[in-house]
Amino acid sequence: MDKLNIVPFVSVENMMRLVNAIGPERFMKELGLVIEDDFRRWESFDKVARIPSHSAEGVIELMPTSDGEVYGFKYVNGHPKNARSGRQTVTAFGVLSDVATGYPVLLSEMTILTALRTAATSATAAKFLARKNARTMAIIGNGAQSDFQAIAFKSILGVDKVRLYDIDRSASLRLARNLVGTGIEAVICESGADALEGADIVTTVTADKQYATVLNDNMVGEGIHINAVGGDCPGKTELQKEILLRSDIFVEFPPQTRIEGEIQQLDDDYPVTELWQVMAGEADGRKSDRAITLFDSVGFAVEDFSALRYVRAKLQETGLFEELDLLADPDDPRDLFGMLLRAKEREKLAV
Amino acid sequence: MDKLNIVPFVSVENMMRLVNAIGPERFMKELGLVIEDDFRRWESFDKVARIPSHSAEGVIELMPTSDGEVYGFKYVNGHPKNARSGRQTVTAFGVLSDVATGYPVLLSEMTILTALRTAATSATAAKFLARKNARTMAIIGNGAQSDFQAIAFKSILGVDKVRLYDIDRSASLRLARNLVGTGIEAVICESGADALEGADIVTTVTADKQYATVLNDNMVGEGIHINAVGGDCPGKTELQKEILLRSDIFVEFPPQTRIEGEIQQLDDDYPVTELWQVMAGEADGRKSDRAITLFDSVGFAVEDFSALRYVRAKLQETGLFEELDLLADPDDPRDLFGMLLRAKEREKLAV
Repeated sequence: MDKLNIVPFVSVENMMRLVNAIGPERFMKELGLVIEDDFRRWESFDKVARIPSHSAEGVIELMPTSDGEVYGFKYVNGHPKNARSGRQTVTAFGVLSDVATGYPVLLSEMTILTALRTAATSATAAKFLARKNARTMAIIGNGAQSDFQAIAFKSILGVDKVRLYDIDRSASLRLARNLVGTGIEAVICESGADALEGADIVTTVTADKQYATVLNDNMVGEGIHINAVGGDCPGKTELQKEILLRSDIFVEFPPQTRIEGEIQQLDDDYPVTELWQVMAGEADGRKSDRAITLFDSVGFAVEDFSALRYVRAKLQETGLFEELDLLADPDDPRDLFGMLLRAKEREKLAV
Repeated sequence: MDKLNIVPFVSVENMMRLVNAIGPERFMKELGLVIEDDFRRWESFDKVARIPSHSAEGVIELMPTSDGEVYGFKYVNGHPKNARSGRQTVTAFGVLSDVATGYPVLLSEMTILTALRTAATSATAAKFLARKNARTMAIIGNGAQSDFQAIAFKSILGVDKVRLYDIDRSASLRLARNLVGTGIEAVICESGADALEGADIVTTVTADKQYATVLNDNMVGEGIHINAVGGDCPGKTELQKEILLRSDIFVEFPPQTRIEGEIQQLDDDYPVTELWQVMAGEADGRKSDRAITLFDSVGFAVEDFSALRYVRAKLQETGLFEELDLLADPDDPRDLFGMLLRAKEREKLAV
């Protein structure tokens, strides 16, 4: 209350310190529980599809939501060609605000945090949708998000064996190297079909910005859970349509997923189940050990909200934030111009 | 290029230094020219109505736009009861980004900057709409925005006499005090009608969040320019409807103004002129010395964009910014998780 101008800020450096202080596995587990908690109260959130600004090179999006007490939004870009100039394909930052005053209460980097929440959401969905005792996961596409997926599934489901495939073998080698010492056994495979051998779960997380077929229908056996992460914008999918027709499909927010997800290949009224309903006990998840379940993940604002409120809850105990002078706080709220005049006087005196 | 993680940040303190270093009058004049420049190329902007999140206490809005090369958005709240807790009714911050990469290139406070751009837009509109040689302006409502209006009209139009009225006389006294030494003569008036005596322009900028009648039809004489700033959300207007029917009405972005502006009192197809068309020479502004012109101002994203790009252009010469570690920049763009691992190693070594 005494410093109304200050907003706590979590830089990239402090986010890395925070994740390492908590430990990536524990971070995933706790974040997964916050996401689950927010999904269970899904109906208390204002939900709108993200607001995109498209260009030839990519997209910039704003993703707002509110639970009536706290408002949050994320800024995120998606620029597939960025790697060529040494930049991230996806960068993000986010804000939480107090609905009662409209004042921001947290500004945070979200490039790392988005990677964490995407993986924690995937593993939390799989907790409800994969077969019990699933231990082996195929990961097709071994880029920046794949490590986070492996760690989240280890932490939340106990997956301790991953079978890796990427058209670029060096990507699989990179991923396998990062998993050394995590208790996850990594096997590098020669093809997608090879990776699926004996897998209880398959995660597809490739980066192509086009209709691709990362999974063919004949690769997908009974009982598998498909965690489809990479298809996440109009014109970008990873699964052959026939797979969708054999699967029970679970989504975050249907109006958004029908535009951006794998189900953009299906009719607008094709039946899907909302993930929150499964978590809240209002809909069935996996119906049998032979069913094929598909989480058609595109990412939704509520997950970012969960991630931001988890980070915020950790700030006081860890102190891993800076104070940002973001909000004007004149002595008299009516006298904004007077604050400028007094700042000038102070500078004169300081000379 | 060498520090891809850094985004320049203009704090409240640095914004005050910047305005004082340039001088409020010169700042208004230069900002007015940037706004005019952007209004002339109005059709090159992506335009959407702002995205609001309403609550019982107020509203939080996101206002994005893009010209295809630069993307900008503003976060702004409106909470009329905030003054009771010593907070600003309106606070804001904004971001500019490079469309080609999606990377933010500026984060700035915008509480002060919004006050400046609102006033600069009003005065720039009046440059095209008020009678030539207008020198006297009535200001009804003498709160936080009124000082900025007076300075902008002095700077951009040469208005050197203001006639002040507020239901709270202490607000008028406050404003008059801040105008001492600016070359603007301030007269405190006993009523709105009194304030309008001999005025070439009337600015209404009251804070009531309800339908109010700050100006009656019989107060408004021929040839005046009305700068209606305070009516800026659904259910909040300041002018008697009869005034609108006698006026030539100019607006920023019709889909937004029809919801938020004075013209919410009129039919949805009531003819109005877009301000940018006047500035671009595509529509008439003032048609005669006897016409009543009305700028129904609600504020639009393009004005914030102009203000942010003006501030950005001043950063290198003034150095009035900080470097914010906002964007993750791993050595290998694919290896975001590896960046976390290496940060942990660094911390171990540092112990």
